[in-house]
Amino acid sequence: MINRILILGTGLIGASTGLALRASGFSGEIAGFDASASELDTAQSSGAIDVFARSRADALDFARTADVILLAVPVLAILDWMQLLAPVLTDGDGPPQLLTDVGSTKLQITEKARELFPSEGRARFLPGHPMAGKESGGAALAEPTLFRDAIWLFSPLDAQSEPSPIEQAWRALVAGFGARTLDLAPQRHDELCAWVSHLPQMLSTALSALLEDTFGADPKSRDEIAAIGGRALRETTRLGASPYSMWRDVALSNTEPIAATLLALEQRLQHLRENLRTHELREEFLLANQFRRR
Amino acid sequence: MINRILILGTGLIGASTGLALRASGFSGEIAGFDASASELDTAQSSGAIDVFARSRADALDFARTADVILLAVPVLAILDWMQLLAPVLTDGDGPPQLLTDVGSTKLQITEKARELFPSEGRARFLPGHPMAGKESGGAALAEPTLFRDAIWLFSPLDAQSEPSPIEQAWRALVAGFGARTLDLAPQRHDELCAWVSHLPQMLSTALSALLEDTFGADPKSRDEIAAIGGRALRETTRLGASPYSMWRDVALSNTEPIAATLLALEQRLQHLRENLRTHELREEFLLANQFRRR
Repeated sequence: MINRILILGTGLIGASTGLALRASGFSGEIAGFDASASELDTAQSSGAIDVFARSRADALDFARTADVILLAVPVLAILDWMQLLAPVLTDGDGPPQLLTDVGSTKLQITEKARELFPSEGRARFLPGHPMAGKESGGAALAEPTLFRDAIWLFSPLDAQSEPSPIEQAWRALVAGFGARTLDLAPQRHDELCAWVSHLPQMLSTALSALLEDTFGADPKSRDEIAAIGGRALRETTRLGASPYSMWRDVALSNTEPIAATLLALEQRLQHLRENLRTHELREEFLLANQFRRR
Repeated sequence: MINRILILGTGLIGASTGLALRASGFSGEIAGFDASASELDTAQSSGAIDVFARSRADALDFARTADVILLAVPVLAILDWMQLLAPVLTDGDGPPQLLTDVGSTKLQITEKARELFPSEGRARFLPGHPMAGKESGGAALAEPTLFRDAIWLFSPLDAQSEPSPIEQAWRALVAGFGARTLDLAPQRHDELCAWVSHLPQMLSTALSALLEDTFGADPKSRDEIAAIGGRALRETTRLGASPYSMWRDVALSNTEPIAATLLALEQRLQHLRENLRTHELREEFLLANQFRRR
């Protein structure tokens, strides 16, 4: 059912998907396109893709005959590709096609998909989001095992009806990567991801930026911080290395849920600050202990 | 020069010190005491200590003849032991003795040490702080390699004069654990540790407590959070497991520096929240990237 896959965006997630497809035995053709020629080149050298499109127009040509098109770019670029692909994919007859994505937020993508790819069309859209990644991106860091034991979320446009055969086939490929799949309604997805992914990112960015502002200009302090900072500092600032390019789109497409979690955390930190010498501090530690025991 | 070491508090740090002493070839006697009989028992079974005191009074008797006494308990308990030890250690003649500690904060301990153990006495005090640990404590988690590649901070009472021979001998033992040593004035120690250790702890506690409050009562949400939370969530909440018993003392003995770092972080998070859709977000990510590149 799935013989030709087109991966639009051959960075960390796109190239890792290509490698995972190969490692799990997919024997069809994998085509790729990336705005960066060097990313594309790295992806091809590593075996993540077999062939590549040379331009956006060329990529749209590949899309006409692909069974599955995976959008593996940041959220706003996914929305742009959807707009470009819609006229190409809905103007002809032929076997069913599946568009799916790996975007970090799902509500805006789902709304656009409902509008551009209605369920009666040849091309169906299945919003997806693998919960895997690294603080740095790029095809050079891609791994065939990136999704092993990770969870790959889906937010189907119509949660009530049976998945189409091609959607089932794609889900089976993803399961073959060693990933677990879970379906979440798009709004629920975005709210939960604000808590478990976007808030930790913003927190780590804020803490890293604050430390840079406080100590960055003084070499002696920088050295002391580097010397005495242990695992606690490393872990809480690791995501400070994450690229703005990807997170700008997350912040723009999930502003309100992220702002709500940030405000809640600010208030929590204030509460803790005002209770460093009271029994309330104990309550906070006990609640935190309880969370970690689950 | 150092033949008998007494470790007061045979939890994670105390027992790991005993194991590290043995692993690095120390062949003298290691005695221990802990308020918990089971901690003491675990420490002895693992070889971290050879003999143990059965009571506080018994421990004070061991202290009379020990060359080095290591206070490996939380900060307020260190201050209590200092008060108990002072009359015992300063009332007789004999070879020099070294008191040293592993407390997380240094200013209050240093001030008390100046008062109780003046530099002309037989027993000298060397405030210390190994930057190593785990989110859970106890002798059962002790390891002889806990301090390898870690930094062991000292805040000497008199930074100007040459270390005494027994102090030099203790520093050599610590270096034998594979730890690097670094001297910091006590106030500077407490300020820097507020940034690199206490703030990450409070942050992780606040985030874990907030998540528990938000999702803890609803089993379905708890399962979803557990399923989709990846490395970002694990790392930023890991220290949520830390025990209140230890951190209460840190909060009480370093309140103002911790409060100052918390307030700065609250303001930074607010700034980020108010700029999720502006170019300021880019500046924050770039500063954070710069911090991580150092």
